[in-house]
Amino acid sequence: MAKVKKQPRPKAANPKGFRDYFGAEVTQRKAMLDKIAAVYELFGFSALETPAVETVEALGKFLPDVERPNAGVFAWQEESETGKVGDWLALRYDLTAPLARVYAQFRNELPTPYRRYAMGPVWRNEKPGPGRFRQFYQCDADTVGAPSVAADAEICAMLAETLEAVGIRRGDYLIRLNNRKILNGVLEAVDPDGAVDRDAVLRTIDKFDKVGQAGVRDLLGKGRLDASGAYIDGVGLSAEQADPVIGFLTSRGASAGETLANLRLAVGESAVGREGIDELEQIATQLEAGGYGPDRIVIDPSVVRGLGYYTGPVFEAELTFEITDEKGRPRQFGSVAGGGRYDDLVKRFTGQSVPATGVSIGVDRLLAALQAKGRLAEQEIGPVVVTVMDRDRMADYQAMAAELRSAGIRAEVYLGNPKNFGNQLKYADRRRSPVAVIEGADENARGIVQIKDLVLGARIAENASLEEWKAQPAQIEVAREKLVPEVRRILDRKS
Amino acid sequence: MAKVKKQPRPKAANPKGFRDYFGAEVTQRKAMLDKIAAVYELFGFSALETPAVETVEALGKFLPDVERPNAGVFAWQEESETGKVGDWLALRYDLTAPLARVYAQFRNELPTPYRRYAMGPVWRNEKPGPGRFRQFYQCDADTVGAPSVAADAEICAMLAETLEAVGIRRGDYLIRLNNRKILNGVLEAVDPDGAVDRDAVLRTIDKFDKVGQAGVRDLLGKGRLDASGAYIDGVGLSAEQADPVIGFLTSRGASAGETLANLRLAVGESAVGREGIDELEQIATQLEAGGYGPDRIVIDPSVVRGLGYYTGPVFEAELTFEITDEKGRPRQFGSVAGGGRYDDLVKRFTGQSVPATGVSIGVDRLLAALQAKGRLAEQEIGPVVVTVMDRDRMADYQAMAAELRSAGIRAEVYLGNPKNFGNQLKYADRRRSPVAVIEGADENARGIVQIKDLVLGARIAENASLEEWKAQPAQIEVAREKLVPEVRRILDRKS
Repeated sequence: MAKVKKQPRPKAANPKGFRDYFGAEVTQRKAMLDKIAAVYELFGFSALETPAVETVEALGKFLPDVERPNAGVFAWQEESETGKVGDWLALRYDLTAPLARVYAQFRNELPTPYRRYAMGPVWRNEKPGPGRFRQFYQCDADTVGAPSVAADAEICAMLAETLEAVGIRRGDYLIRLNNRKILNGVLEAVDPDGAVDRDAVLRTIDKFDKVGQAGVRDLLGKGRLDASGAYIDGVGLSAEQADPVIGFLTSRGASAGETLANLRLAVGESAVGREGIDELEQIATQLEAGGYGPDRIVIDPSVVRGLGYYTGPVFEAELTFEITDEKGRPRQFGSVAGGGRYDDLVKRFTGQSVPATGVSIGVDRLLAALQAKGRLAEQEIGPVVVTVMDRDRMADYQAMAAELRSAGIRAEVYLGNPKNFGNQLKYADRRRSPVAVIEGADENARGIVQIKDLVLGARIAENASLEEWKAQPAQIEVAREKLVPEVRRILDRKS
Repeated sequence: MAKVKKQPRPKAANPKGFRDYFGAEVTQRKAMLDKIAAVYELFGFSALETPAVETVEALGKFLPDVERPNAGVFAWQEESETGKVGDWLALRYDLTAPLARVYAQFRNELPTPYRRYAMGPVWRNEKPGPGRFRQFYQCDADTVGAPSVAADAEICAMLAETLEAVGIRRGDYLIRLNNRKILNGVLEAVDPDGAVDRDAVLRTIDKFDKVGQAGVRDLLGKGRLDASGAYIDGVGLSAEQADPVIGFLTSRGASAGETLANLRLAVGESAVGREGIDELEQIATQLEAGGYGPDRIVIDPSVVRGLGYYTGPVFEAELTFEITDEKGRPRQFGSVAGGGRYDDLVKRFTGQSVPATGVSIGVDRLLAALQAKGRLAEQEIGPVVVTVMDRDRMADYQAMAAELRSAGIRAEVYLGNPKNFGNQLKYADRRRSPVAVIEGADENARGIVQIKDLVLGARIAENASLEEWKAQPAQIEVAREKLVPEVRRILDRKS
């Protein structure tokens, strides 16, 4: 340490856009990931864990500037021992790009179709904002090598099961389903020469929820003034071209059958459009047969998903309940998961198109939703704290903690400076300990221990009447050998 | 994808020194981490998850060259949106450095002592070798802010409990315990002016297991020829100076009491040496009282641990059973965990010494040990595969899979091209599926399904007699409504 002292002290801080997670923040996320993994496993998906680091070459997408490939990703160049420079490496920005690499690399050993799930952090080299971090969790399931829309239907059904498994009740979520091919069919009809920027159309339609039908119509045409007063250029469709797109977007009917009929009108003679509708119909039939009715999964043509790489069915899960935002206003919680079919990601490596479909769950948003609904305990419940009255008797105190643990009760001996007993109780308080155990020389001589109910104690200190205090004292004396059952009794009373 | 096609195809490969983990490799590690976390929680430790990325400044240690701080770590420099350069960032190389940063950053909000555990990957920018990867898991528990050796005793006890919880039986491991202060005392006596390079002495003693007493004596003195014929320079102690060090190293007696008595002779009048022995004695007393006798934890002066930062008690857990190495030779499995007291890591940030002690478990080595002992299933057991005989009846097949899942049975519908039925069975085989379900038009008309026991089928195909075949056919016909109980019966037979 001698050398370090001479330098200025380093700052104890996270890099910008990164944060730490403590106690319940870690265990609640873990519990949620466990529940999701259990559903994925039940559906036959197999775990895959790829490393955080990939070659920039394999990640592929973020290469606007080959000399400095770090737009959007954290990247660096390898150096060999001799100082020579090597491959560019990067932290993965999602779990789909590594899956494409794995499938291309191991396709001869993997089963086909390959159903895999993956969960873990991904990294984005983006400007952080409130609640937006540069490291966050994703939780994906994908089926690679299955061209059948049965694979898409299965993923939708599994998503519904997963949401319910983590505690989102039926009626509190809705999975909205569409097919990119139908939109392609509509665009084929209105723009047979491919003169229109289709990605721009996608991005415009994706704003339907925000700007409404009239807004989308303006943006598909000449443009519009946005709320801030700035003029947003439109895609440049004529009114005649925009009409069928709006018709498509708003074709959701009272039932799946009605929606499909509306869509058939919207695509006209387009072969790809009709194919898309047939696929949706098959998916809907399979889901209905499986009991996934319109209370859980609906066809909604306004869902297109922003990402360019989808080639077929797309879907999105939104939570339908309102929460109160940071300014106290009620608002819809919105999307927590989404996915769809992407048939070209593996092709980059192998030259051959490989059909694939998958879902990605935003675990952190889902946790926030459960928290907003009050379905998560806010904080960790601390251990029982065995206080230290006589520091020469540590072995005795450790024996008490060991007995409690043997009974499955989380327990520890106070390991700070025991001199000030008040500090020991403050510590227990900060740990949110439910119970403190006290045994001084006097108690030891009498063969007893004091058990202090810290939760009750805090409540009594605040507002209890004398009668309540007498009826249920916050501190009781019990025989030493009754320690475990008496602590258990107090803990059981709380749960 | 059009742009990408023009470029040469990217290589589908991991960066050098990184690897993917599939199926059981992921779930077995997860199961082990869960068991370890459960013990840590029971002892009152609280989860902490820090991000993978830290500032190089906070990591601190690896700064031989400030311009290019990537010796041993993966590091890169931040760039702002305007292209200006910013902080150097790096992937964490262990879980202790981030803990020191967190404690310094949040010390006013955290309880003192702060017991925390952390598990996750760490990264080393080192030359990979066989079985040595540049990303691997660590699993740590540390107590920060507790000067008492009761904290060290607790960590040792917890390590014993943890090893047993993950499946290492009592008698198959030994935790060896020592105290750096005793060695410091010995060196104080033989080298009162501090002329000797103490880190070099540490590294030499750390070779005791490999080179034995005579080897260490040579290396403490002038040096020796190693097995390859190269001459290794010694530390340069005289025989008179080396004697007490060797005496210290070999002072393990038949009992803890005897060892402590030998150590008292070895340190002579040194105050720090005596303090170290007193601490060891307290730890031993507390552990004995807790039932952690010499069958689990012993005092062994030959354990010093290589790392420079330890300041007090140090310990190491080794597995005592033999395994067969890749060349078929029996060998000791060796160390799987270690730790000790380090009182100066937080000081870098705050200027104040903060006592801390902790343990790190090598999860991957521990998994390898359990595998070597045959205590892990080698591969994932696949799902029940519902085969597809008639692709228009996908909804029916999905209903079967859904029924199986509702009963908690892992199940899926075959989603590849169903044309070649042989391929469906090959797929089930590759997935290690225990059972395939078959229902064609004929079965459907008769209201039955075929259930094929794939494990039994494989065994029969290999070596069964006709009698066995008749007694327990590998394929049975059951009524459609008996699907779930019959599959359950076959699965239960296997487990």
